Amino acid sequence: MAEEGIEERPEESGEEELDIPSGTRITALADGVFAIVMTLLVLGIDMPEVADDQLGDRLMGEILLVWPKLSAFVVSFLVLGIYWIGHHSQFHFMKGVNRTALWLNIVFFMFVSLVPFSTRVVGHYGTQGFSLWLYAANLILISMVLLVHWRYAMRAGLLKDEADEEMARSASRRILVGPAIYVAAIGVSFFSARLALLVILLAPVLHILPGPIHLHWTR
Amino acid sequence: MAEEGIEERPEESGEEELDIPSGTRITALADGVFAIVMTLLVLGIDMPEVADDQLGDRLMGEILLVWPKLSAFVVSFLVLGIYWIGHHSQFHFMKGVNRTALWLNIVFFMFVSLVPFSTRVVGHYGTQGFSLWLYAANLILISMVLLVHWRYAMRAGLLKDEADEEMARSASRRILVGPAIYVAAIGVSFFSARLALLVILLAPVLHILPGPIHLHWTR
Amino acid sequence: MAEEGIEERPEESGEEELDIPSGTRITALADGVFAIVMTLLVLGIDMPEVADDQLGDRLMGEILLVWPKLSAFVVSFLVLGIYWIGHHSQFHFMKGVNRTALWLNIVFFMFVSLVPFSTRVVGHYGTQGFSLWLYAANLILISMVLLVHWRYAMRAGLLKDEADEEMARSASRRILVGPAIYVAAIGVSFFSARLALLVILLAPVLHILPGPIHLHWTR
Amino acid sequence: MAEEGIEERPEESGEEELDIPSGTRITALADGVFAIVMTLLVLGIDMPEVADDQLGDRLMGEILLVWPKLSAFVVSFLVLGIYWIGHHSQFHFMKGVNRTALWLNIVFFMFVSLVPFSTRVVGHYGTQGFSLWLYAANLILISMVLLVHWRYAMRAGLLKDEADEEMARSASRRILVGPAIYVAAIGVSFFSARLALLVILLAPVLHILPGPIHLHWTR
Repeated sequence: MAEEGIEERPEESGEEELDIPSGTRITALADGVFAIVMTLLVLGIDMPEVADDQLGDRLMGEILLVWPKLSAFVVSFLVLGIYWIGHHSQFHFMKGVNRTALWLNIVFFMFVSLVPFSTRVVGHYGTQGFSLWLYAANLILISMVLLVHWRYAMRAGLLKDEADEEMARSASRRILVGPAIYVAAIGVSFFSARLALLVILLAPVLHILPGPIHLHWTR
Repeated sequence: MAEEGIEERPEESGEEELDIPSGTRITALADGVFAIVMTLLVLGIDMPEVADDQLGDRLMGEILLVWPKLSAFVVSFLVLGIYWIGHHSQFHFMKGVNRTALWLNIVFFMFVSLVPFSTRVVGHYGTQGFSLWLYAANLILISMVLLVHWRYAMRAGLLKDEADEEMARSASRRILVGPAIYVAAIGVSFFSARLALLVILLAPVLHILPGPIHLHWTR
Repeated sequence: MAEEGIEERPEESGEEELDIPSGTRITALADGVFAIVMTLLVLGIDMPEVADDQLGDRLMGEILLVWPKLSAFVVSFLVLGIYWIGHHSQFHFMKGVNRTALWLNIVFFMFVSLVPFSTRVVGHYGTQGFSLWLYAANLILISMVLLVHWRYAMRAGLLKDEADEEMARSASRRILVGPAIYVAAIGVSFFSARLALLVILLAPVLHILPGPIHLHWTR
Repeated sequence: MAEEGIEERPEESGEEELDIPSGTRITALADGVFAIVMTLLVLGIDMPEVADDQLGDRLMGEILLVWPKLSAFVVSFLVLGIYWIGHHSQFHFMKGVNRTALWLNIVFFMFVSLVPFSTRVVGHYGTQGFSLWLYAANLILISMVLLVHWRYAMRAGLLKDEADEEMARSASRRILVGPAIYVAAIGVSFFSARLALLVILLAPVLHILPGPIHLHWTR
């Protein structure tokens, strides 16, 4: 792992912090949680049950009907990709963790671990606005914990010197791009829940393309 | 992983210990086990099955009914967070492992791995005292193995010099805070099993807040 | 992890790459994803349900009927072994990652994570050509992303100096051996879908045996 | 991970081995596979379904009926503990891997990954001899691959100098203790399949206790 630059704990912490796992342990747990959540998503794609005597006629049709679940799978996988990158990025600029930061991480993992459930709901009941609200709410909660974690690290002096205030604030703003999109998706869901899922896909697309948003906050 | 300070095995161990995995391997397995157990918890939140023609009316109501399972998920996730921190803390003060310590770890992982089952039972049958007893018993067993592991490490000379006897004993006492809460929850379950689950939530809450208990044993 | 030789990011990348996880984080996520996908395959082998009063007569017969699922399990496990080796091999020759390479990795993990689903389909409906096409298509997609990742790394200057152009091109050709076999399997599936699964088994067999193909491209 | 002493590949290997993952990558995959297989075992303990109006009367009785599944869980968990230690021990003495050793590892992981299936069968149909034979056969296969891996490493010069021939042969013999017990369990299963599962428990018990067997081969 050897995440250079992440020390066991901030210099200013005293004996009180003796039992805080180091940053490398947290990132190891993070990699494990993300790898498992990402791969558990596939369990949400139920295999259709077709009777033996109808196999020739119906199998292809039935399997093609999994596309709503498959699209929920794809959206969740890519959105989790953003969060994994985001979480790692924060740790890249942190020189240590303390008790509060540690528990913020565990709460972050908790909301991330709920994604297979909310993905399953939106994949199964994707025509219903409510399923989309639940899904968007889950993603917004994850973003919010990530934001609180970052702002707490800023205030508690857990950031390295290279992370100056300008950069730290711009990173905060960036985290809010996701929730803005998810709120927009909730709005769209009053017209079409299916379309709203596509709106959520904007988050990874904007993140992948080095577009104006990205250029803005890297400057 | 590079958990500095954990050597492959204690100096006093002879050839007998040739096949003992190093502390870094054990913590790697621990991170894996905790990441998986934490994320498997979500499988205990069953998605409600609603017929297509009742979707508009009933989906929201049905999904909101998952709250007992969701609250069991939250309690277990946070309690597992404590155990993950506790296990890491012990290894922070250990200079090595031997055969006995290794198998105590495997038994610890075994009881941790049972948490998705006991969480599922308490999430599904949460109004029944028996489900709460089963859940509390699982947590008490985990704490007991952690305590035995720590006390064995003390006696077998597996602790580093910085872990003096005063500190080691105070850590032992701290491990017992959890079981005390879980026993109290069993008592409460005779009045209300739902309330008893809330009592268990006290364990992570006390652990997160830097309250008097924490201050006591860090001094 | 300490994957020597993989630096955090290529020298030519500027401040724009600040949030890119290092190669060691990506390989850690890869190891997690592969370990989980490989072990999740076993969930595709359903345990037969036999009534209590028929146990003596029917259990052995019923369990032996899992062989189509077991053979799909074996084929997928070995094919995933090839991809795990292939992904690691590419990182062995890479000196860093950038944003595009990172997202190609996440897409690669996404298609890998679909394997338990397509394996389940081919294990359950193995007599139907369509299930084989779906399975082969999944594997072809994985190979294609791996190829795009490698060719992108070549062009974007992410390879180490030891990976000369001759070697890089020969590696590209090797990645195509898998898809060639999978296309052949689709052809065979018009005669027999069961036989086509055996054809896919050629991929790991050719990879394990140090045969002429291997000798060719290592020269 | 930083498994000191495991180099990327044996000195005698030439360019042919360019794509072999290093020993640290294999042990990382091993830790992941073992962590997942161990925790997936819990999915074999089905939660009993009790109707709401019978909860008070029947829940405790129904849950106590899981004990055959729970005992299969415990036996498998501890036996997997032995294999995890055994696999790590072999890598402790290996100075590198080559293509053949790599694929022997993947086959080893494959048989390990089948354990949740065979455990489920023996937990569900534990009164039937056939379920025990299947389970014992799975464990014997794992041991055999581990033995082949060790003997191959001996012959192919993959062992470090500290692993002299005497020690290497004694380790080979030790691996056979497990299969001997599993064969005995198959014999016992003709009288009682339940008792045979207890016989398998002898393997971890003998491994944990520093008894005569252990003393013999460490000398």
